[in-house]
Amino acid sequence: MEISKAKEVFKAGLKLSEAYRHASVVMNYDSMTAAPKNAAAYFGADMALLSGEARKVKLDKDFIEAVETLCAHAGELDGITRREAEEEMRGLERIRAIPAEEHAAYRRLLGVSFAKWQEAKRRDDFALFEPYLDEVISDCRRMAQLAAPEADPYDYWLNENEEGASTQMLDGFFALLKRELVPLIAAVSECEKPDASFLHAYFPKAEQQKFSLELMDLMGIDRDRCSLGEAEHPYTTFISRSDVRMTTHYYERYAAANMFSVIHEGGHALYELNVGEELKGSPLAHGASAGMHESQSRFYENIIGRSREFAELVLPLMKKHFPEQFSGVDAEGFYRAVNRVEPSLKRTEADELTYCLHIMIRYELEKRLLHGELKAADVPAEWNRLYKEYLGLDVPNDREGCLQDMHWGSGLIGYFPTYALGNAYGAQIAAALEKRVNVWELVRRGGLPEITAVLTEGIYRFGKLKTPAQLIEGFCGEGFEPRYYIEYLKKKYGAL
Amino acid sequence: MEISKAKEVFKAGLKLSEAYRHASVVMNYDSMTAAPKNAAAYFGADMALLSGEARKVKLDKDFIEAVETLCAHAGELDGITRREAEEEMRGLERIRAIPAEEHAAYRRLLGVSFAKWQEAKRRDDFALFEPYLDEVISDCRRMAQLAAPEADPYDYWLNENEEGASTQMLDGFFALLKRELVPLIAAVSECEKPDASFLHAYFPKAEQQKFSLELMDLMGIDRDRCSLGEAEHPYTTFISRSDVRMTTHYYERYAAANMFSVIHEGGHALYELNVGEELKGSPLAHGASAGMHESQSRFYENIIGRSREFAELVLPLMKKHFPEQFSGVDAEGFYRAVNRVEPSLKRTEADELTYCLHIMIRYELEKRLLHGELKAADVPAEWNRLYKEYLGLDVPNDREGCLQDMHWGSGLIGYFPTYALGNAYGAQIAAALEKRVNVWELVRRGGLPEITAVLTEGIYRFGKLKTPAQLIEGFCGEGFEPRYYIEYLKKKYGAL
Repeated sequence: MEISKAKEVFKAGLKLSEAYRHASVVMNYDSMTAAPKNAAAYFGADMALLSGEARKVKLDKDFIEAVETLCAHAGELDGITRREAEEEMRGLERIRAIPAEEHAAYRRLLGVSFAKWQEAKRRDDFALFEPYLDEVISDCRRMAQLAAPEADPYDYWLNENEEGASTQMLDGFFALLKRELVPLIAAVSECEKPDASFLHAYFPKAEQQKFSLELMDLMGIDRDRCSLGEAEHPYTTFISRSDVRMTTHYYERYAAANMFSVIHEGGHALYELNVGEELKGSPLAHGASAGMHESQSRFYENIIGRSREFAELVLPLMKKHFPEQFSGVDAEGFYRAVNRVEPSLKRTEADELTYCLHIMIRYELEKRLLHGELKAADVPAEWNRLYKEYLGLDVPNDREGCLQDMHWGSGLIGYFPTYALGNAYGAQIAAALEKRVNVWELVRRGGLPEITAVLTEGIYRFGKLKTPAQLIEGFCGEGFEPRYYIEYLKKKYGAL
Repeated sequence: MEISKAKEVFKAGLKLSEAYRHASVVMNYDSMTAAPKNAAAYFGADMALLSGEARKVKLDKDFIEAVETLCAHAGELDGITRREAEEEMRGLERIRAIPAEEHAAYRRLLGVSFAKWQEAKRRDDFALFEPYLDEVISDCRRMAQLAAPEADPYDYWLNENEEGASTQMLDGFFALLKRELVPLIAAVSECEKPDASFLHAYFPKAEQQKFSLELMDLMGIDRDRCSLGEAEHPYTTFISRSDVRMTTHYYERYAAANMFSVIHEGGHALYELNVGEELKGSPLAHGASAGMHESQSRFYENIIGRSREFAELVLPLMKKHFPEQFSGVDAEGFYRAVNRVEPSLKRTEADELTYCLHIMIRYELEKRLLHGELKAADVPAEWNRLYKEYLGLDVPNDREGCLQDMHWGSGLIGYFPTYALGNAYGAQIAAALEKRVNVWELVRRGGLPEITAVLTEGIYRFGKLKTPAQLIEGFCGEGFEPRYYIEYLKKKYGAL
């Protein structure tokens, strides 16, 4: 195949494939938000059929020949096409390594294991989920061996979820975290807790909605390209740089939940909304990785959103909408209240300081599961032991313990560490940012879009054109360094 | 091809085709409701790509062979498969009759003509739209000649939009309408108008929303399978019997608009929600035709919703939500207010009595356009002349005149008559219904679900398995008879 022909076939295939992705993401979003309750079951079968058609696009003989032709002439391609072709080749190798029947059987297993996890959680009965967790782990191990026979199977999955991640990198990171954070948390836990009772006044939903839109404006989120919906567990849907859907959840008895959901999801949204226009329509037109994405949501949520300067900026907006609820509250009081540390059982509600310990526990367990050093049956006891050791907590039941997260039931093995990496990337990026602009002065006077502009120039605009490692190196002038994160936490919580 | 093999290939093709339809309907709904403003442009291209893929399913060699095999053995098939195969054959013949390039050129023309219509309406400048209207008409004429060389081209399009409709049938219907209604409207117009000022008090949107959900409950609409959203111009989206999406529009200064939108769209929804379970997933699992659909929305909106008995039923619900606005209003006053007749320029806001005259004007014009007896350039003058003749109104400009509807710009030729047929079917069905159950006693005591049950048994459950003519014949014991409609209007508005 001629290169020009290959490029044409390749681009047409990508375009069609993106159209399928568009349909699938919209159907998924719709089924979670707009669809009537009983419609859900009907979505799954149709989405599966279309996903089969989408798969055929990538397995088309001509498309494959085009990918191979382009990769063989990588040096002659523009940067975007080259990266696209390399990514497709990686995907192709993955598809080729795993027999289609095995892949289909695994998809079916995940359907069942997810349902079993749901049931097990609802009934607080780990035994229902246990055999499926063992099966998921053994299938993941087998697929890793087929796809990368020379690699450690857990390393394979880490790298699938975050390009460049490995047990070596994460063992070092978590060891540092453990050494430095466990004693810090123990010390903080003994301190007197700041007053946060004013966050639990009554905050009518309608007023919180108005506040949220103004908060988006304050963050410089273009609402013509980004909507704000509602969901039980907030998340953000990325369709294109013209179509991002944030969601939040309103608790009328806790104002901070929605505020930090909007800021967190807003960080994800800003990343996608600022991917370079030249990548539009390409599969590269999204954040570089799960970890890089989380670095931005966490950066805005914690490093910016839970700073003293942001408390000064946002409190007047809060008071505008909730004057009585916040009467007598000053920025310092607000700052302390939203930074209250309290070891808890639930990852998704964890404070900034203890969050990564929740991840560390999951990392240790899934690594041992993949290595065959642990059986599913041992998970509850090990989970409870580690929560006691790291967070000083007794886990009363598995529903609030090892059944709390949907990840393992959905086959997301090696995904948890991306949350911790995100936190660490974020702190390192923040340190580099401080060298370029006066971050805290900008936050104090509402110049968040100027911060976003610097991040766009150095990170966002590249989308997936660069790897996480290249982006960190490019923006920070050095490779990944977890110490920034530890230093940030020690400085902040040492002072508090 | 063996019959069993043909059936397998055929059913798989239909299933895939329905999955594409599902995606397309959801994307369309999402783009109109949830998507951020600037995302719209991005939808069109991807939806066009997927619609191309969907078209390929129906043009697949094996699928075509399966359709032909099944049609050749129609006598050996179950009723559902037989009707499905015949419908596919009709579609196939249409596709074969019109060369692909011509069809593609026509789709492109419609894209432009719709945009030109929008611009012409916005700028109140018919000349911008005029050449495109001529082109749409001439393409429609040509396609009709290709697809059905022996038929009258307008008859072809009538039948495409409503199986069984023809100029012969509609000429008779509209002649009757004209003879009976034009004098009646003139007489009613001279009577004193009932007071409807209380409908224009202030009705907060949030309260109207609550009222609307209770109104859906009153109609027996299963809200686990049917949602209520918002749209500028209310419409209903049909995905499956487990997924119907109604929309409404809230005017805070006019309570009747939302109430009758909900009842009208509720009629459409009830039809789809009660299609037989055995049709689920089949292309037959929808209302039989545009006219049959409109018959149900109009039946609930006007015959039921604007009856004295319904006024008695719904007024307490109105008063529960709007006690002050409706204080001193009784059922008779409410009944009279919502049946106020006033000839107006706008079809979508027309009252029950004058509505069909709006359709008659459009019918006359598009028939003459298709027959080459009228040029687009003559449309404004003819439009204005007919509005004067039938409704006694002077049309001040084309924006409020012949540019008001999007139909012609979108290529919907022969569609308007389905609205009038719907009204007439509805009255005939109502008359047959009155012979079976005590309709008015049921309405008075809130037994709407019992009415729906009779309609389900006789009409809804069949979906598209029967033609409109078969359904009317089956339910009413005779063929289509427009006199029921005329009698209904004369009786009701004669008394008022």
